[in-house]
Amino acid sequence: MTKPTRRDLANAIRFLAADAVEAAKSGHPGMPMGMADIAEVLWNDYLSHNPSNPKWFNRDRFLLSNGHGSMLQYALLHLSGYDLPLEDLKHFRQLGYKTPGHPENFVTTGVETTTGPLGQGFANAVGFALAEKLLAQRYNRPEYAVVDHRTWVFMGDGCMMEGISHEAASLAGTLKLGKLVAFWDDNGISIDGEVAGWFTDDTPARFEAYGWQVIRGVDGHDPDEVRTAIDTALAQDERPTLICCRTTIGFGAPTKAGKESSHGAPLGADEIAAARKALDWPHGPFEIPQEIYDGWRAKGAGTVREDQWNRLFDAYAERHPNLAAELARRSHGELPGDFAAAADAYIAKLQADGPSIASRKASQMAIETFAPQLPELLGGSADLAGSNLTLWSGSKTAASDDPGANYVYYGVREFAMTAIGNGLALHGGFIPYDATFLVFSDYARNAVRMGALMGAHVIHVYTHDSIGLGEDGPTHQPVEHLASLRYIPHNDVWRPCDAVESAVAWKAAIERNDGPSCLVFSRQSLRHQARGDAQVAAIARGGYVLADAEGGVPDAILIATGSEVGLAMEAKAALDADGVRTRVVSMPSTDVFDRQDADYRESVLPDACRRRVAVEAGVTDFWRKYVGLDGAVVGLDRFGASAPAGVLFEHFGFTADKVAAAVKGLA
Amino acid sequence: MTKPTRRDLANAIRFLAADAVEAAKSGHPGMPMGMADIAEVLWNDYLSHNPSNPKWFNRDRFLLSNGHGSMLQYALLHLSGYDLPLEDLKHFRQLGYKTPGHPENFVTTGVETTTGPLGQGFANAVGFALAEKLLAQRYNRPEYAVVDHRTWVFMGDGCMMEGISHEAASLAGTLKLGKLVAFWDDNGISIDGEVAGWFTDDTPARFEAYGWQVIRGVDGHDPDEVRTAIDTALAQDERPTLICCRTTIGFGAPTKAGKESSHGAPLGADEIAAARKALDWPHGPFEIPQEIYDGWRAKGAGTVREDQWNRLFDAYAERHPNLAAELARRSHGELPGDFAAAADAYIAKLQADGPSIASRKASQMAIETFAPQLPELLGGSADLAGSNLTLWSGSKTAASDDPGANYVYYGVREFAMTAIGNGLALHGGFIPYDATFLVFSDYARNAVRMGALMGAHVIHVYTHDSIGLGEDGPTHQPVEHLASLRYIPHNDVWRPCDAVESAVAWKAAIERNDGPSCLVFSRQSLRHQARGDAQVAAIARGGYVLADAEGGVPDAILIATGSEVGLAMEAKAALDADGVRTRVVSMPSTDVFDRQDADYRESVLPDACRRRVAVEAGVTDFWRKYVGLDGAVVGLDRFGASAPAGVLFEHFGFTADKVAAAVKGLA
Repeated sequence: MTKPTRRDLANAIRFLAADAVEAAKSGHPGMPMGMADIAEVLWNDYLSHNPSNPKWFNRDRFLLSNGHGSMLQYALLHLSGYDLPLEDLKHFRQLGYKTPGHPENFVTTGVETTTGPLGQGFANAVGFALAEKLLAQRYNRPEYAVVDHRTWVFMGDGCMMEGISHEAASLAGTLKLGKLVAFWDDNGISIDGEVAGWFTDDTPARFEAYGWQVIRGVDGHDPDEVRTAIDTALAQDERPTLICCRTTIGFGAPTKAGKESSHGAPLGADEIAAARKALDWPHGPFEIPQEIYDGWRAKGAGTVREDQWNRLFDAYAERHPNLAAELARRSHGELPGDFAAAADAYIAKLQADGPSIASRKASQMAIETFAPQLPELLGGSADLAGSNLTLWSGSKTAASDDPGANYVYYGVREFAMTAIGNGLALHGGFIPYDATFLVFSDYARNAVRMGALMGAHVIHVYTHDSIGLGEDGPTHQPVEHLASLRYIPHNDVWRPCDAVESAVAWKAAIERNDGPSCLVFSRQSLRHQARGDAQVAAIARGGYVLADAEGGVPDAILIATGSEVGLAMEAKAALDADGVRTRVVSMPSTDVFDRQDADYRESVLPDACRRRVAVEAGVTDFWRKYVGLDGAVVGLDRFGASAPAGVLFEHFGFTADKVAAAVKGLA
Repeated sequence: MTKPTRRDLANAIRFLAADAVEAAKSGHPGMPMGMADIAEVLWNDYLSHNPSNPKWFNRDRFLLSNGHGSMLQYALLHLSGYDLPLEDLKHFRQLGYKTPGHPENFVTTGVETTTGPLGQGFANAVGFALAEKLLAQRYNRPEYAVVDHRTWVFMGDGCMMEGISHEAASLAGTLKLGKLVAFWDDNGISIDGEVAGWFTDDTPARFEAYGWQVIRGVDGHDPDEVRTAIDTALAQDERPTLICCRTTIGFGAPTKAGKESSHGAPLGADEIAAARKALDWPHGPFEIPQEIYDGWRAKGAGTVREDQWNRLFDAYAERHPNLAAELARRSHGELPGDFAAAADAYIAKLQADGPSIASRKASQMAIETFAPQLPELLGGSADLAGSNLTLWSGSKTAASDDPGANYVYYGVREFAMTAIGNGLALHGGFIPYDATFLVFSDYARNAVRMGALMGAHVIHVYTHDSIGLGEDGPTHQPVEHLASLRYIPHNDVWRPCDAVESAVAWKAAIERNDGPSCLVFSRQSLRHQARGDAQVAAIARGGYVLADAEGGVPDAILIATGSEVGLAMEAKAALDADGVRTRVVSMPSTDVFDRQDADYRESVLPDACRRRVAVEAGVTDFWRKYVGLDGAVVGLDRFGASAPAGVLFEHFGFTADKVAAAVKGLA
């Protein structure tokens, strides 16, 4: 083989993809074959990365929002020298290999984010680009652009149709994320066929309406046109850029190219053989000639690039030691060494002070206390700052060049907010917290799930946590949300009962660096609860004995969370007076409690006591895991209503009398 | 008072809103005060309705997507003569009155849909307009435009920021819903303040990119400009229209107008008093002079309008009796008289035939069987028609003028699809079914919830219901979704175990006319189960004994759904052989089973048998409601993985051996 052409290099992607899908008997060959030429130009001519160190902090980030085309990314990683052997590509979509059906950042080195649910990778990219912008404006100094990289994202028609593309693109335009470049794979095909029947947007005009630079009509199979478009994108940093690439899905497949039949199924042996002829690719499945590897390998240039940056950073560290140390700490995801002690001191003080306030207010106090230590804490709310209480005295809008910018006014964009938060966390350097009413976690739900799947260190602040929201009515009153969020694997949900538990929840969420936490707070005031030191320490275990009966196993156990803990305490007083020796267990986080060892769990919920009543202003069935068939649950299995909170709690049976009666009703 | 001016009529709205919010001590005065002039023009000059019969089928539909401005709608209904007494307005947001915090169609006559969660009312409106278009093209005949009305929707900046506005507007443009008119309340304010910091879209340009007619820069406080804009909208029926109205939020409040302080809180007595002076409204709270009522009352004209239509319809019924009868049946939400019997016959035949097929395929067969009888069945999928198997031989795209149009290619727009479905159902004349992968119900979740809250008769088809989805991996594999959907109050979830249960689920969903049903189907084949007639009949009870042990209370009970029923049957065989007399309960719908009487439930799950094991490829805790603390659950409390389905079931412990072992592990 002579020196391979650009097309030859791109064809390596095409056949790795087609052959891997064929071997797996499932997958999506069409997109990798369609976007191969674009990817080849981007990766070989522009992408600043180092395959030898996929975690190099100042690397460009590449995201595949149309994640079904995962073989494109695996081919790129393999060809350019990442630790992704051919063996993994041969076992595409098989258990135990690093080539799952959709890109998974926790499985495959070099994959920045997990994609597949359409549109979210694009919103993640907005988060990545925002992270870069904010870090650059805080840490860069003249001659020391230590944070200086781009975010590149591929997206398909599906991403474009999804609502989240609107939310994310709109915010990216407002925030002027000039180092974000999106490539739209305008191939005119989605799963149901030619998109003309259901997708007739003038997408370039739409993105111009968001304030983006839009480069129209690029031939996605012409490397020169792609280069020109990228150069235009790079020529300015004021606006994000959308490069609209006309491509042929399944490019090179003689009968299936340009058709939905190439999208999501193996092409078939005959079609692949014909494609080999058509594209003049004489090599067998998974055979990559050395010349092709030589054309792709990016390790050498990557190492040089990183070395240069390391020298720059060393000089920066000498000149600006505090900034460099802080940036290094943040980029490693480490908390300040004295964070835990300071937080504990604050918690102890709160326990002593004993404020009876809304837990959303307690949340704000916790932010106010912790944030000055944590420049990585990047707040925001979906247009409910004053209700969620997410602003603190040091909040500065991200829509500014202020080096202290640490707050995003997300607008009414819950889904993009949450997916952007995932992106901020995955980029590194930030612990993002976002916020909305608990009921509107629904709008963001799949991004919460994706954060949990990816182990993203993000914090979701969800206030107005029950019918306690009151007059806004059932559209705004969560009923099933606590239980539903708890069921997302690897997601920690906290519903604190007072200011002390709220602070502990915040501390836990800040310290939990391998997954998301949902902090669920009340609109209304919650009574402070008395605790000894051991009890204060036990809050972090998710559930603990808040008030016990004298001597041995109690006659009855009340389990409650949030606003219902106060109710349980009232009921306990009545029950104790009636001779029913009652324990109250406060259970701010069932997720955390369930991870405790069996002895601890038994110490809190002794098996011998089956007279158990759970109290929570939400669906009852969730609590059967603790009260079983023989216990009872005081909860709400219907939608709420519009009325003042006090009226509703009474109306729906959340009174100490009813709770006590539920205990007495049990044998 | 002399004849009131338009401004006087609008001021009646303003002060009803301001005073009601003041009395409630909570609510949103800003929007009603800002949009009062627009509403006055629309309702008094254009809206074709009949307050004496709010259910008149050919009425115009008016929807308030910015539902926090509910007092606008209550004022309009009260003033124009609907059955909404002043007493209710005086008790805004109080328990037991017809004036909840956000408009609720099931509480207040004349309210078409329930709004509050932003953007969804707009998507509902797209559904209403689509319903009108499809009914018109099926039923109208020359000289008999029996279906001929418009859909008007108010929306705010919040609706515009939400992603669902993109999905819904895009589809409305593609479908050319020319009788849809949206009013954008462009007041520049959202809860966090002036939107310029987070919302800088060129919204008119965006909607033009969707193919809408956009009327820019209308002064929303100038009735003539509003009239001109509406006339322009009415002048064509080819494109939906967006009327961009510049307004002042809280118009008339001297210090708070134009500010977020007027948005979501009472104005205060002083501010209201000053507004009274500023707007020359000398009347006390809830005092409406007769002249004002006279200027508003629409009853007379409404009755005339409906009478005219009734005469038209009578003539039509004479000329086109079959069409008229079918339209009347559909508009009353009645099924054909022979539907149930035909469905039962089909189910009996399936039981006899015993096909072992994927339940998604069984779903398609049910549609194919039922749909010819049911022109009201309006299908669709979010770009997964071939995977969800939602097309049948009679499917015709709604993007056509075909009188048989009955299928919407929704594109990749799960949230809008679902909210549009709610709109179609609320309009009347349709039983919509939509579809996506079960995992992507997340994207639509709050619309599923809203359908349940509203009692909308919609059907959600969710396929690829577990790790059985296989190679696409954890991003596409639902784990927590079944449990989470079951927790939405008033939502019926079905997960059938074979073709027979699939048909029963479809029948139940079609017959359930007061709420949504989620029909959850497998990708992979499911084994047919043997049943006697009584068992076939019992499927409709949600849970039943599929296979029993000889004599008396069984030693153990296996409870399973969907693909895990086959597994339970295998385990039973092994257990029976080992002398453990085992019952298998198939539980396709826990929601329906839980509604059965106590005797029936006891007959299926006798309290005396506590050796219970539930099997479902999803989160385990949900099943504690049936197995209690002493039972066991074979399930999945983590995310799945990318691999072939068979490999995954084995890998995650879904084998008959493991199920049998779980039973044996119980005392």
